[in-house]
Amino acid sequence: MSDRQLSTEFDLIKRYFAPLSKAEPGSYGLTDDAASLAPPEGCETIVTKDMMAAGVHFFADDPPESLGRKLLRVNLSDLAAMGAEPRAYALGLALPEQTSGNWLEAFAGGLAQDQAQYRITLIGGDTIRAAGGLTLSLTAFGEVKRGQALRRAGARPGDDLYVSGTLGDAALGLLAVQGRLEIIGVSDREHFVSRYRLPEPRSALGRKLIGLANATIDISDGLAADLGHMCAASRAGAVIETKLLPLSSAASAALAGDRGLLNTILSGGDDYELLISARPEASERLVKAARAADTALTRVGCITEELGVRLIDADGAEILLTSAGHTHF
Amino acid sequence: MSDRQLSTEFDLIKRYFAPLSKAEPGSYGLTDDAASLAPPEGCETIVTKDMMAAGVHFFADDPPESLGRKLLRVNLSDLAAMGAEPRAYALGLALPEQTSGNWLEAFAGGLAQDQAQYRITLIGGDTIRAAGGLTLSLTAFGEVKRGQALRRAGARPGDDLYVSGTLGDAALGLLAVQGRLEIIGVSDREHFVSRYRLPEPRSALGRKLIGLANATIDISDGLAADLGHMCAASRAGAVIETKLLPLSSAASAALAGDRGLLNTILSGGDDYELLISARPEASERLVKAARAADTALTRVGCITEELGVRLIDADGAEILLTSAGHTHF
Repeated sequence: MSDRQLSTEFDLIKRYFAPLSKAEPGSYGLTDDAASLAPPEGCETIVTKDMMAAGVHFFADDPPESLGRKLLRVNLSDLAAMGAEPRAYALGLALPEQTSGNWLEAFAGGLAQDQAQYRITLIGGDTIRAAGGLTLSLTAFGEVKRGQALRRAGARPGDDLYVSGTLGDAALGLLAVQGRLEIIGVSDREHFVSRYRLPEPRSALGRKLIGLANATIDISDGLAADLGHMCAASRAGAVIETKLLPLSSAASAALAGDRGLLNTILSGGDDYELLISARPEASERLVKAARAADTALTRVGCITEELGVRLIDADGAEILLTSAGHTHF
Repeated sequence: MSDRQLSTEFDLIKRYFAPLSKAEPGSYGLTDDAASLAPPEGCETIVTKDMMAAGVHFFADDPPESLGRKLLRVNLSDLAAMGAEPRAYALGLALPEQTSGNWLEAFAGGLAQDQAQYRITLIGGDTIRAAGGLTLSLTAFGEVKRGQALRRAGARPGDDLYVSGTLGDAALGLLAVQGRLEIIGVSDREHFVSRYRLPEPRSALGRKLIGLANATIDISDGLAADLGHMCAASRAGAVIETKLLPLSSAASAALAGDRGLLNTILSGGDDYELLISARPEASERLVKAARAADTALTRVGCITEELGVRLIDADGAEILLTSAGHTHF
C-alpha cells in the first residue's frame, strides 16, 4: 500500500464526505478516530444498520446519486418504524478500484439532498477498497423518548391494520427493470422504477405514531412476510382484505391487465411503507396524524386471536401465495 | 429470491447471532427493526465504524474465529483512543453464497470470546449475500462522560509522547504471512502473526487517560503516519527518538538481523497501540494508570512547536522513511 493510496483515502473523505458532516459538531469533521453522539435529555438512541451489494441489491451501473439515497432511506424506514426522529448516520463504503471522482461526487450529492430532506447528518464511517463489487453499509441513528420506541410486538386481537402510501409499486419496478413487465405505459414504468430506486421512508408519520400504534413494522420483505413477522412477535394472527389494499393508479392498471400480479403486490419487497396495528378507538387520531404527515393511510384488515396470516380476496376466498416474501439476503 | 433463502437469513441470525445479543435488552434479541441504546446519565455515545474485505484486509482462508475478533478489536481500539468504555456493536456481514454453518459458528464463537473479554454486546446488524468475497462492517458504541472524549487535536509543544505495548509486531506478522520474513524462528513467527491477526485494543488504558492525556490516537496506519495525523490536528510537530521505541524481543531479534526492518516498524500498520501526548507533569500519574491497566507504556519523544514529524536514530541522525504509512484503503 502506498502514499498515493493513503492520500487518496484522505482526499476522498475531505472532498466528498466531510462537507456532509458539518451540521453535527460530534462528527469532528470526520477527522478523528470516532464520533460523539449524545441524545437529548430524556431520549434514547435508536440504531439500525443495512447493507447493499452490487449484483445483489442493485445493478453496478445504477445511477450513483440514487444508490446512496436508497441505502439511507432504507435505514430511515427502520427508524420510522420505531417512531424515531432521524439524527445521524455512519457510512461504510467498499469501493472497486476503478471508482471515479464523478461517481463519488454524484453519490455524495444524492446523500446531501436526502440529508436536507430528512434532517440527518453524516458523523463517521469507513472507506475501504473492495476486492469484488461495490458494497455499501450504513448505520443510522434516530432519537425517541426513553422507553417509547414502537415495536413489532404489541399487536392485539381486535386491532385494525393500516398501511401507509401504496403497495406493490417497488416490486413492479423491479420487474420492469428486469424487463419482465412489458405491457405498461412509459409513465407507469417510470413510476414503478422510481419507487423501486427511491423509496419514501415514512419518517414524518412514524414519529407521530407514538402513543397511537400498538405495533409497527416497515414493509421491506413484502406485506405478507412483514405482517407475518409482526404477528409472530405479537403472538397473534391477522386477516387482510386484499380489495382494501391501497394501489397506485399505475399498479391498478397493471393488475387489471394481469391478475397474477396480485401475488407480486402482496409478497414483493422494497415498498418501505409502514404497517401499523392500532385499537379501533385510535382511528380518528391516526387519520389526523397521517393527514398532518401528508401521508396516505388505509385500513386493510385486522389482528385476530387465531394465529397465521390470511389474505382474503374480493369474493371472500383465501389467497395462497406462491412465494412467502421477498428477502434481501 | 426464495423462501429457502428467507428462512436461511432468519435461521442464521437466530442460531449464530441472537445469542450474542442477550446482555442488552435494547437489542430486542435482534428481532425488531432497530435497537435501542441509551447512554447512562451524563454520558455520551462514541461511535466508530470499520470495514474489512477479503483479499484486501485479510485472506479468504484466514481462521474465521480470528476474523470477527480482529474487526471488533480494530473498532475497540478506536473507542480506546477516545477514552470510551465499550458498550455495544452492530455487525454487517456480506457473505459469499458458499459460507458454511461451521464457518459461521467459528466466526460467532470468536465474537463471543471477545464480548466476554471486552464487555461489549451485539445489538443489531444486517446479513446480506455478497456478490464477490466476504465483506465485514462493524459499528461500535462506547460511552464517555459528556464532553470528555479524548481527541487527536490537543497535543501541545513540550508534551511528552508515549506509546503503549510494543511496535512493529503486526507489520512483521504481515510480512511473515506473505512469506517475506524468512530468517526468524518459529516462536517469533507465531508471535508476529498472532499480533497481526489479533491486535490487543488498549481499552483498559484508554479509559484511564481521561484527564491525563492532551491527545490520543490509535496506531493503525503506522507510528509515523498516525503521529502525523495527531500533529496535523494539533498544529504542532514532533520528534521521535527511535532508540526509545518499545520492541518485543522477537522484533528486536528481527531488527538485529536486518536493520532495514526499522522502516517497517516505523511505518507498518495494524499495531493498534495508543499514541499519547501528555504534559511532563502528568508522567507519574500516567505510569500509575498504565500499571493499573496492566499495559506497558514507553516515552518515545515529544511534541515540538516546529511543524513536521522527525524520526531521530541512536546517532542523532534523521531517518527518512521510504513509505509514509500503511493504509487500509
